[in-house]
Amino acid sequence: MFKVRVLNHEIIEEILDMKQVIGAVEKVYTSKAEKKAELFPMVFHEFERGVADMDIKSGHLADADIFGLKLVSWYGENTKKDLPMLIGTTMVFDSITGKPIGILNAGHVTGMRTGAAAAIGAKVLARKESENLLMVGTGHISSFAIAATLIAMDNIKKVRIYDPMNIEEAKKLLASIGEELEKEFLSKYQGSSMYDEIKAKFDVEFELVEDIEKATSLSDIILTATPAREPMIMKDWVKPGTHISCIGADMDGKQEIDENIFAISRVYVDDLAQAISVGETEIPIKSGAITRDDIIAEIGDVMIGKASGRTSDDEITVYDTTGIALQDLMTSKLVLDIAEEKDMGTVVDL
Amino acid sequence: MFKVRVLNHEIIEEILDMKQVIGAVEKVYTSKAEKKAELFPMVFHEFERGVADMDIKSGHLADADIFGLKLVSWYGENTKKDLPMLIGTTMVFDSITGKPIGILNAGHVTGMRTGAAAAIGAKVLARKESENLLMVGTGHISSFAIAATLIAMDNIKKVRIYDPMNIEEAKKLLASIGEELEKEFLSKYQGSSMYDEIKAKFDVEFELVEDIEKATSLSDIILTATPAREPMIMKDWVKPGTHISCIGADMDGKQEIDENIFAISRVYVDDLAQAISVGETEIPIKSGAITRDDIIAEIGDVMIGKASGRTSDDEITVYDTTGIALQDLMTSKLVLDIAEEKDMGTVVDL
Repeated sequence: MFKVRVLNHEIIEEILDMKQVIGAVEKVYTSKAEKKAELFPMVFHEFERGVADMDIKSGHLADADIFGLKLVSWYGENTKKDLPMLIGTTMVFDSITGKPIGILNAGHVTGMRTGAAAAIGAKVLARKESENLLMVGTGHISSFAIAATLIAMDNIKKVRIYDPMNIEEAKKLLASIGEELEKEFLSKYQGSSMYDEIKAKFDVEFELVEDIEKATSLSDIILTATPAREPMIMKDWVKPGTHISCIGADMDGKQEIDENIFAISRVYVDDLAQAISVGETEIPIKSGAITRDDIIAEIGDVMIGKASGRTSDDEITVYDTTGIALQDLMTSKLVLDIAEEKDMGTVVDL
Repeated sequence: MFKVRVLNHEIIEEILDMKQVIGAVEKVYTSKAEKKAELFPMVFHEFERGVADMDIKSGHLADADIFGLKLVSWYGENTKKDLPMLIGTTMVFDSITGKPIGILNAGHVTGMRTGAAAAIGAKVLARKESENLLMVGTGHISSFAIAATLIAMDNIKKVRIYDPMNIEEAKKLLASIGEELEKEFLSKYQGSSMYDEIKAKFDVEFELVEDIEKATSLSDIILTATPAREPMIMKDWVKPGTHISCIGADMDGKQEIDENIFAISRVYVDDLAQAISVGETEIPIKSGAITRDDIIAEIGDVMIGKASGRTSDDEITVYDTTGIALQDLMTSKLVLDIAEEKDMGTVVDL
């Protein structure tokens, strides 16, 4: 009989703060580069093409003494049933004994670790003095990505928001983002010494943009988080020195930026195999815009000093973050540890 | 937020009865044959060879509107830590919406469905009038396999018990099996109309055997459940009309019976791909004793009338049951339904 902690969405939302998640995802990247973490093969099954599918992503983080999996299902018709389209569950096991230790709703952790990943791309690869951030896409992930990038960077002054599909969505995000940052992200630091620092970082100007070409040319950092299958940002619009973190592509055929941008950029990925098969990097390689050898490194290699990052202020850098199970596992372990300390969640006998 | 039922070992042990599990596993076999059930690729990871590993087996049972997975870890050193070597957890999801519905300790279900599978092999392939059962191996699975086979067959009069490694273990099982059958299996039917029937079926003679050659020649049905890597039962000892259910082989290199038995038998499996890669069927094919085409069918094909089973009383039949995730999922769904009805287990918000 094992004591296993079960954490639902609300508890995880209450527990996690973005700075910690950035730290957890950074740890995953460096552990992976040091070969202390590995991904297992993904299981993917389509119940019906375009209607419902599921995947099981799993891996081992030797550094953190855990292994585990995240199962995510996507049911396109679920909204009609008042259910979320994406439903995820994470299971964490102790890799010293094989014991189950935690079961978590995967939704909030996925949002947090995805935003953190995009921000780490900027932190590692963008110019330190970057002031202008452009958020392309205004879905669920956008506020996580904006919050994380504002926290990870020191000099952002303006955040432009663009939605390729629906300007109304962009207007909604523009109207709510200030309050969202305060309520969902800043509030976690109430009473902490970091509160003032993060409050100051969140004190930026937000602007809705309709002209993506112009907005691109004004940006130091661009984050893309859309389900696009056609490029929205073209090569000639990107100014020297820009950093782009591509979040959206997680399936073959998805593409957010012009593949020719890859040919003039220093390209980094979270996981080589996954980026090439399902990430933003897939199309540039398939189209011949770049070859596999043109990818400079996994980002963890830059972080441990095994590969070089940006080498000059006028280079364009691209970070393709496809999202790996290790991020979910490490972040979940973080939540579990905090929940244990605070005696939160439900402990069940399994 | 989802309501998910969590069931631990004790509750599952209390709920499940063997007749129901035999029914559930039969349903899996026929659904699979009717293409209403499918296995997903297995994930296997060795943390350290011969020391610790884990696998994730998953699949979809369209017939039962569920999909899910079983994660099993094996840690050889766990006994020193007073922990089980094998630890398993099953997760069941609703395949109409993708919602998680249950999380179960996988141990007891694994024992029950494994015993049931061996018994179904006998039920489908052995001669109806079989009286003499030989159990080879006296580990954890043996009492499940004996109970299930006594329930599934109508005329067993004698059960011989043989342990290839340690006669003391066989003596222990001989001393305890009567009480075990009563306490752990028959007790489930207390107050039911089936009680007397099953009590009568359990009323058999048990005998310890040391001479496996002689015991083999006296047996109508042989069940093998050992971790053997060398054959224990040789071709020339097996009398015409015998049925053998091989349970033990679940990894390449494992072998319980002489590969030449396959050459003179009608051979059936639970899952073709899995039997050939890790089951008892692996060695006979690798050694050339039989070819893939010599395997008559998956057992489900016999059950739905798509393939023929035993065609005469003097044929030898072999059933290689490797164990598939669908058995765990279907049996787990059965437990979950009963637990819901009886309001057992812990319902958590996930």
